[in-house]
Amino acid sequence: MTRTLATETVAKIGEQVLIKGWVNARRDHGKIVFVDIRDRSGVVQVVGKTDLGDLRPEDVVYITGLVKKRPDNLVNPELATGTVEVAAEKVEVVSKAEELPFDMGQETLEVELPTLLDYRALTLRHPKVQAIFKVQEVVIDSFRKAMQAKDFMEFQAPSIISSAPEGGAEIFEVKYFDHKTYLAQSPQLYKSLLVGDFERVFSVNKVFRAEPSVTTRHLTEVVSLDAEFGFIDSWVEVKDMAEYAIKFILAEVEKKCAQELAMFGISVPKVADEIPHLKLREAQEIIFQRTGRDCRQEKDLAPEDEREICKWSLEEKGSDLVFVTHYPTRARPFYTYPDDKDPEFNQGFDLLGRGVEWLTGGRRIHDYQTLLAHAKEWGVSPENIQIYLQAFKYGMPPLGGFAFGAERITMLTLGLGNIREATMFPRDMERVDVRLSTIQK
Amino acid sequence: MTRTLATETVAKIGEQVLIKGWVNARRDHGKIVFVDIRDRSGVVQVVGKTDLGDLRPEDVVYITGLVKKRPDNLVNPELATGTVEVAAEKVEVVSKAEELPFDMGQETLEVELPTLLDYRALTLRHPKVQAIFKVQEVVIDSFRKAMQAKDFMEFQAPSIISSAPEGGAEIFEVKYFDHKTYLAQSPQLYKSLLVGDFERVFSVNKVFRAEPSVTTRHLTEVVSLDAEFGFIDSWVEVKDMAEYAIKFILAEVEKKCAQELAMFGISVPKVADEIPHLKLREAQEIIFQRTGRDCRQEKDLAPEDEREICKWSLEEKGSDLVFVTHYPTRARPFYTYPDDKDPEFNQGFDLLGRGVEWLTGGRRIHDYQTLLAHAKEWGVSPENIQIYLQAFKYGMPPLGGFAFGAERITMLTLGLGNIREATMFPRDMERVDVRLSTIQK
Repeated sequence: MTRTLATETVAKIGEQVLIKGWVNARRDHGKIVFVDIRDRSGVVQVVGKTDLGDLRPEDVVYITGLVKKRPDNLVNPELATGTVEVAAEKVEVVSKAEELPFDMGQETLEVELPTLLDYRALTLRHPKVQAIFKVQEVVIDSFRKAMQAKDFMEFQAPSIISSAPEGGAEIFEVKYFDHKTYLAQSPQLYKSLLVGDFERVFSVNKVFRAEPSVTTRHLTEVVSLDAEFGFIDSWVEVKDMAEYAIKFILAEVEKKCAQELAMFGISVPKVADEIPHLKLREAQEIIFQRTGRDCRQEKDLAPEDEREICKWSLEEKGSDLVFVTHYPTRARPFYTYPDDKDPEFNQGFDLLGRGVEWLTGGRRIHDYQTLLAHAKEWGVSPENIQIYLQAFKYGMPPLGGFAFGAERITMLTLGLGNIREATMFPRDMERVDVRLSTIQK
Repeated sequence: MTRTLATETVAKIGEQVLIKGWVNARRDHGKIVFVDIRDRSGVVQVVGKTDLGDLRPEDVVYITGLVKKRPDNLVNPELATGTVEVAAEKVEVVSKAEELPFDMGQETLEVELPTLLDYRALTLRHPKVQAIFKVQEVVIDSFRKAMQAKDFMEFQAPSIISSAPEGGAEIFEVKYFDHKTYLAQSPQLYKSLLVGDFERVFSVNKVFRAEPSVTTRHLTEVVSLDAEFGFIDSWVEVKDMAEYAIKFILAEVEKKCAQELAMFGISVPKVADEIPHLKLREAQEIIFQRTGRDCRQEKDLAPEDEREICKWSLEEKGSDLVFVTHYPTRARPFYTYPDDKDPEFNQGFDLLGRGVEWLTGGRRIHDYQTLLAHAKEWGVSPENIQIYLQAFKYGMPPLGGFAFGAERITMLTLGLGNIREATMFPRDMERVDVRLSTIQK
């Protein structure tokens, strides 16, 4: 007998079906037993007697039974299959679950973060936890679709690199046969050099940062959504492409994840027709005017400043997202393009939303000699970036690009409090699946 | 003036256009100079006089000019834009290229492998080299589309892992703050445990193997295309899903990469309506009958045996691809499902094609106690696979899955001699972009 998925039962009233799934919940009403069976499509109620008697949550069962229409007064409007139930005829337990360490039946899984992660194989079964990764899947897939639609070519960026191009801080070392190598902090140099080959490229890949601190928004391993393209006239085209990408992603999430957003009681961020943009110094002036906090000489926005400018953007411009542009050139990497009129500031930008940075991007230097001079000035050894410099030596168009973190977009779209919730298997200073204190030094 | 792509010129005869791209080639005919301009769409010929005089291959130029129909006798049928040329009016050199270290104008780039890789930023500009990565992009994208169509959920597998679950051989060590961690050799344990959460999952991600030897088909960092799913009845469903995936991928490559395949003078592998499958012992008997080489007691096929069974498959079954199944259980990982009738052999399979392994897969043990017993018997510490075992403790359906290497499919589809050609930035015992001998120990 062919398997019927839970949500397919509504179209099979009066038919005998074979349901395969996990026991999601169990309710006893005297001699009558109800079990909700969960599979990848959703949940359906099965009704039986003593044959369901020893079923426990998370048991894997194959149940043969008859699909029946529920009487009107017993319809459950909150369930996609709430109009039917399956009357059990034969029950086979394929895998018996041990007793659960906590109640998985609550609408929101109420466990502390360490427990959520210690029991990750189990907690990922909770519908509201699964919703997070449905959203993440749509974010990543939509990014690829957005870039493909603009003729960007997908490439696979390397993870192991031969040197720490921008210095050794916050970079992981890999013992590579007899040599020292490192884990890439970003595909920046690769995506830039590939503009010389393919003009427009994007990648979805892991980047690694040895963040020496524990915060709610940093991990050591994240999924970076990167794009880079050539033949631009100014940084504005780069900003516009980033704006197109994030709008595309959010529109897809809104369309495909209505149910998931509803579970979190949240809407996708509000975006103005044109996302507002302002220079760092302008943003700092606004913050000073609004709060009296004088950050007007700072090189970057502190977390509280990021929150304030997001508040301003929503209140004054009706946009949850806002670009801040023109950061001090010296505070950004060597390849950043200085502004023509005021070279102390660069043609780069961050996109902020809901109080946090979502994306960073900008125009890059394309002239070989200027790039070489900047590298030296920034203390980056040309020896360490040979393959990158090579691209510029042999003809490179004006270029720029941007990068998002997939986990951050997921976290901020759903309003989660901690990026670890937006990562199936988060890695940080304290944990790599298991707590670091339990593994060898 | 808006940019016109090279291939768009054919629809703009009589119009003034702005072309932006690289000088692909240059030909002097007395006072007349022809330059081919290359951009992401293709190549178009520009004709001019002394104004094109100092252009060199790989210079980045912006050329304004008039699109003219070529006289019939000067049409180039091999070029998509061969019916037109652009008469240059204004030429701006945006980035001047240094003199090239070798001729990039040949139809096939004739450089040795070390040169191909030493100059990777440059050699990736060659059309026939680019074709390889167009095919790879289609392979990877088609894999995702194939799995999405079957309701598989995409997930992001971690790269840094806390222990070497199957022993420490061929695994890279990462210095992780004060602890020893490793780079994942496969997402196997993660994709299996996620079957307990999402039923059907797939991933496209990097895996790392400290291969201590230099061969034409191994790298230390490759892109693994992984799928795993639950509620199967036998290994045959896993084989069938793998067969569906590879057929889908090859059909897409055939459809979308006709031009690229033609450049390599090759067709996608021939596939029978049903890909033939035979047990290892049957394959070995056939090899013995055909060659007199007696490998009938071996645990695996040697490279020459793989080539022979592929030859047999093509000659006798009309299929470039062939499944070999039922390898000795002890020669495979601890989670492999033994055959019910003959537990010395397992319910696993390899897919071979054009003389080389393409894919490996099979059914996995889903019973917690059996899995635990096997882990111990195989010398795998349950401590090291806690999060994985947890999934089985709390109810796991019968499951199986498979994995391809994206670079191998690309290499074998195009008939390349070395997997390094099918990788933008190949890593091996001797090279991580630069030769290892040049970097620190």
